[in-house]
Amino acid sequence: MNLVQHGAVYNMLSLGIASMTFTSLFLWYGRERVLPKFRMAVMVSATVTSIAAYHYFRMFDSFNEAYPVGGTVDGGFAGYNVGYRYVDWFLTVPLLLVELVAVMGLARAVQSSLLKRLVPAAAAMIVLGYPGDMHTQLFGLSNSMWGLLSTIPFLYIMYVLFIEIGKSLASQSPKVQGLLKGARLLLIATWGVYPITFILAMNDVGAPSFEAVVNREIGYSIADILAKCVFGLIIFTIARIKSAEENKEFAANEFRD
Amino acid sequence: MNLVQHGAVYNMLSLGIASMTFTSLFLWYGRERVLPKFRMAVMVSATVTSIAAYHYFRMFDSFNEAYPVGGTVDGGFAGYNVGYRYVDWFLTVPLLLVELVAVMGLARAVQSSLLKRLVPAAAAMIVLGYPGDMHTQLFGLSNSMWGLLSTIPFLYIMYVLFIEIGKSLASQSPKVQGLLKGARLLLIATWGVYPITFILAMNDVGAPSFEAVVNREIGYSIADILAKCVFGLIIFTIARIKSAEENKEFAANEFRD
Repeated sequence: MNLVQHGAVYNMLSLGIASMTFTSLFLWYGRERVLPKFRMAVMVSATVTSIAAYHYFRMFDSFNEAYPVGGTVDGGFAGYNVGYRYVDWFLTVPLLLVELVAVMGLARAVQSSLLKRLVPAAAAMIVLGYPGDMHTQLFGLSNSMWGLLSTIPFLYIMYVLFIEIGKSLASQSPKVQGLLKGARLLLIATWGVYPITFILAMNDVGAPSFEAVVNREIGYSIADILAKCVFGLIIFTIARIKSAEENKEFAANEFRD
Repeated sequence: MNLVQHGAVYNMLSLGIASMTFTSLFLWYGRERVLPKFRMAVMVSATVTSIAAYHYFRMFDSFNEAYPVGGTVDGGFAGYNVGYRYVDWFLTVPLLLVELVAVMGLARAVQSSLLKRLVPAAAAMIVLGYPGDMHTQLFGLSNSMWGLLSTIPFLYIMYVLFIEIGKSLASQSPKVQGLLKGARLLLIATWGVYPITFILAMNDVGAPSFEAVVNREIGYSIADILAKCVFGLIIFTIARIKSAEENKEFAANEFRD
């Protein structure tokens, strides 16, 4: 791997560490700046970025060990652990949906029914995607077949987010509606990066090229920062606005309007 | 140990680190989201996952040192410290029973009487199980004999959980009863993984095979995540529901129903 390629991934992973770690710190303290009713949503957002911070520290170290400047492909393929990303997504992607539903402040029965469908679907989407990205023909299925299987829960999540959650949007204020729609769109748009990266590398057998590794790592990192840090801060903003809408005293203490 | 075997244990132990560490963080902050009466139960849950987080960090490092890709059986067996798991369980298994009893919100005398029996039995169960898993014929007793001795306190715990705690369930609301029964079942089901793994490796003398190590580590890790993280989050949910049931102001602040 040459110096420019190495430097690009190295700095991108370090940006990931910094973004995840300090968004976490901000959100953990930030929970106090919303009403108790919305604190769980902020705490789950902080948990997501904290989990990702751990994995970015690990990936940074794993990358530096596996891909020294001027090193070989084989050494890199054996040493760099792509599993960190999938373990991270397995934990964080269901939690991103929990954040989104929690900040809406729905009745407990509605919230529980939504999460009972979204969380398992999100976990299934990640678990089914991993064998395709391992390039090992697990259970005799090709990479594209695993990718296709993983698309089924993805489409189901789309359905729940747009049709079912769409119905609950009417009860929110116009300002909150706009932000919730933006957050939902951000989630879908950033999730779109993953299958694109997946498809680009789908036909590679064995070790991917240096170029493929660099593109994949940069693509995944940008998507992660948008889907976790920016998304988490939008959730926090929604929680602040909803707190002010529901409680005049909170609004007077926190804002000057 | 080959690359796939190594990667499976490596990622599973890292999943253990992430699950334990960030469930801990969430529960430490989460104690604020239940009434003071139920905070001890949540704090004990957070203590359990924190203790386990420490041990998963240690096991991850110990495993990587002991089982390099392509390394030998002897080197692996000598280097990997199974003791971490037993030290962890010795501290956490009694505390899991404390969580369960504490969240029920029983009268102090009843709670104290239950814990005086459950905590020593849980500690005895772990202490007696360890020599069997060391495969060293300690005090001239075979692995299966240690396994059998460890089953005696286990059966006593079953008795207390199902007969004695069963009586106290009647005083809980139907929703809480369902969750408490689920938590009790989860505890028993996941504890079942340990003896199965134990029996599978019982007749191995000296170093276990790579396959046995991989199955054992994956089995123990999944059981640990269910018994500690998922169990702790159920305890937290029970504490939230009971807080809302007992205090209308808490319910109005935290939920929209």
